[in-house]
Amino acid sequence: MSVRTDHPQTAATGKGPRRTVISVDAMGGDRGPEAVVSGLAKSARKNPDIAFILHGNEAELSALVAKRPELAGRVDIRHADGVVSMEDKPAQVLRNGKGSSMWSAIEAVRDREAEVAVSCGNTGALMVLSMMRLRKLPGVNRPAIACYWPSKNPAGFNVMLDVGADVRADEHDLLQYALMGTSYARNSLGLKRPRVGLLNVGTEEHKGRSEIKAAAELIADAAGAGEFEFIGNVEGSDIPSDKLDVIVTDGFTGNVALKTAEGTAGLFKSFFMEAFRATLPARIGALFAARQLKILNRRTDPRRVNGGVFLGLNGTVIKSHGAADATGFAAAVNLAFDLARHDFNHKLAARVASVPSHGQDGATSNDEQDGKQE
Amino acid sequence: MSVRTDHPQTAATGKGPRRTVISVDAMGGDRGPEAVVSGLAKSARKNPDIAFILHGNEAELSALVAKRPELAGRVDIRHADGVVSMEDKPAQVLRNGKGSSMWSAIEAVRDREAEVAVSCGNTGALMVLSMMRLRKLPGVNRPAIACYWPSKNPAGFNVMLDVGADVRADEHDLLQYALMGTSYARNSLGLKRPRVGLLNVGTEEHKGRSEIKAAAELIADAAGAGEFEFIGNVEGSDIPSDKLDVIVTDGFTGNVALKTAEGTAGLFKSFFMEAFRATLPARIGALFAARQLKILNRRTDPRRVNGGVFLGLNGTVIKSHGAADATGFAAAVNLAFDLARHDFNHKLAARVASVPSHGQDGATSNDEQDGKQE
Repeated sequence: MSVRTDHPQTAATGKGPRRTVISVDAMGGDRGPEAVVSGLAKSARKNPDIAFILHGNEAELSALVAKRPELAGRVDIRHADGVVSMEDKPAQVLRNGKGSSMWSAIEAVRDREAEVAVSCGNTGALMVLSMMRLRKLPGVNRPAIACYWPSKNPAGFNVMLDVGADVRADEHDLLQYALMGTSYARNSLGLKRPRVGLLNVGTEEHKGRSEIKAAAELIADAAGAGEFEFIGNVEGSDIPSDKLDVIVTDGFTGNVALKTAEGTAGLFKSFFMEAFRATLPARIGALFAARQLKILNRRTDPRRVNGGVFLGLNGTVIKSHGAADATGFAAAVNLAFDLARHDFNHKLAARVASVPSHGQDGATSNDEQDGKQE
Repeated sequence: MSVRTDHPQTAATGKGPRRTVISVDAMGGDRGPEAVVSGLAKSARKNPDIAFILHGNEAELSALVAKRPELAGRVDIRHADGVVSMEDKPAQVLRNGKGSSMWSAIEAVRDREAEVAVSCGNTGALMVLSMMRLRKLPGVNRPAIACYWPSKNPAGFNVMLDVGADVRADEHDLLQYALMGTSYARNSLGLKRPRVGLLNVGTEEHKGRSEIKAAAELIADAAGAGEFEFIGNVEGSDIPSDKLDVIVTDGFTGNVALKTAEGTAGLFKSFFMEAFRATLPARIGALFAARQLKILNRRTDPRRVNGGVFLGLNGTVIKSHGAADATGFAAAVNLAFDLARHDFNHKLAARVASVPSHGQDGATSNDEQDGKQE
């Protein structure tokens, strides 16, 4: 029994106090529905007011949910036969995705039964289905994917976007990213007046591509109305710094930067492990420092920053890492819960609408026709 | 007394055996000529056959060189009044740079007194002066800057280009980068058949921007004649891996990736230092592991990979980090020495000429007219 209202924070399962409902695609991740259900149980222990609509194979999911007492009375299972695989091309999914658990999960947000959908499936497919079913917010030309980036700021994270929704962005898109990114930072990190930097190859104003120079002017002009601070051009080395909160870039550059950081972190960790295993004194040293090494390991654990948020749609969709385990998936679900409770998507829509935009006039860039990520 | 020949490996200072001559801009770095001369002394101790032409303030340089017995009889000082500062815009330097130490250092390569020039001055200025005075190699449309990237390969490094010569690259430029990058890897890392990856947002063929899809085909076609292996699209996380040797990308993406890696490494190091200072047991642990921590520190020391090589010109120019100390500058000079001894630029020119190119027809991209980095 589902109640349809404009504000979806009502009980998915019909009983008890007002609950925040998250729509969850249980299929399509590398570890299957067991890791997903286990992540939901973790999140339910932390958030007494959370409820779920769970999409996938009903028999399989019922059995998994029944094993988790934390989930009793909180889960509404919706059967879906199809599963979008990691190998499916987005164009195929667009044609044949109806009836899949991913489609069904998005549909619950479209029908306002839930405000946020979470999936650990195929990113490209999730984006095209989300765009098709939820549609873009007025004023948004290209949606973006935002992620947390470990940083030296007190919150521990900065926000970076776009990290891969679209391989191109013109100056108007970059302005929209600045508006959406500050709204996200405000609602998820609790920052009143986020500081925005525009990713470039140097901090000087004359540096970079023409669309970035144009974007710098648009973003500077919008800072007052948008209640953020624009700090100008920043470089890759500034992404984790405490001089900014939000980093704006196109989805090609953002995706490469994100994965380069992952690769660098991985290389560091492997050098690090080698060093502490190389000799007996080093191994003894590791024992003495064990507690701090554990804290260090947690601080640099990529699972903590799991969850790419799709911004710019009529409803929020969160992409969890495909290989997420229960801890990783719970992090994505907790993020979904926070955003839903803050009524994030309505605030984001208002924010985007507050600044005049030419992002949809289609005549601003000769890159428009090519380069769309499939 | 300088002898002009087609092959510049002759004695700059006129006496003794055949020497390899490196032209060095002594001014314009953050630490001044003292760090430069000290770096030359380090390099001279390692390389008995090296000689230098040193450009800058003669009085100041003579005094510094006189203090270094290793440099006796190896340094030909050329007086230059002007110094290009880090704040000078490339366009200004192009107009007013004549007579500067940077100009003079490039001129020695142009005049074939030296094959390689090294400078720790302003990157943009060094690139525009190098392009103006040395001219591009036949077949090269856009020169590139290549750098070493710490990796899991036996050599310890991969080669990445372009890391910032130009903010745009079309498919023909990316092909040239593949040819120049493999030539560099062959001559500096001693690899016979380098493996080339094209940086993209995913490994699937349908991913990415249109020029990257086109470049993938051109590079695959050139692999046979170019004696390299093309492994296709790679992601940011693959840059330090051992599945490739050369990473090809445009100068905007490459520069952001490079600086993002620096920022990530810096964040890791700061977390690391905090962990080992946080508690008494951790500090004791650090003492036990001191030797391995020192090795770890050296492995991740950015000074070891100092030296961005300008590829695609009639002569090789190496950009040392502006803040390089003696150790860092010596690393850049040693790289210059290796490349000069391998007669690198002649081999590079032959390699670029060996594959048909349309990179100079100017009609291949509508991006040609904009986006040039100033």
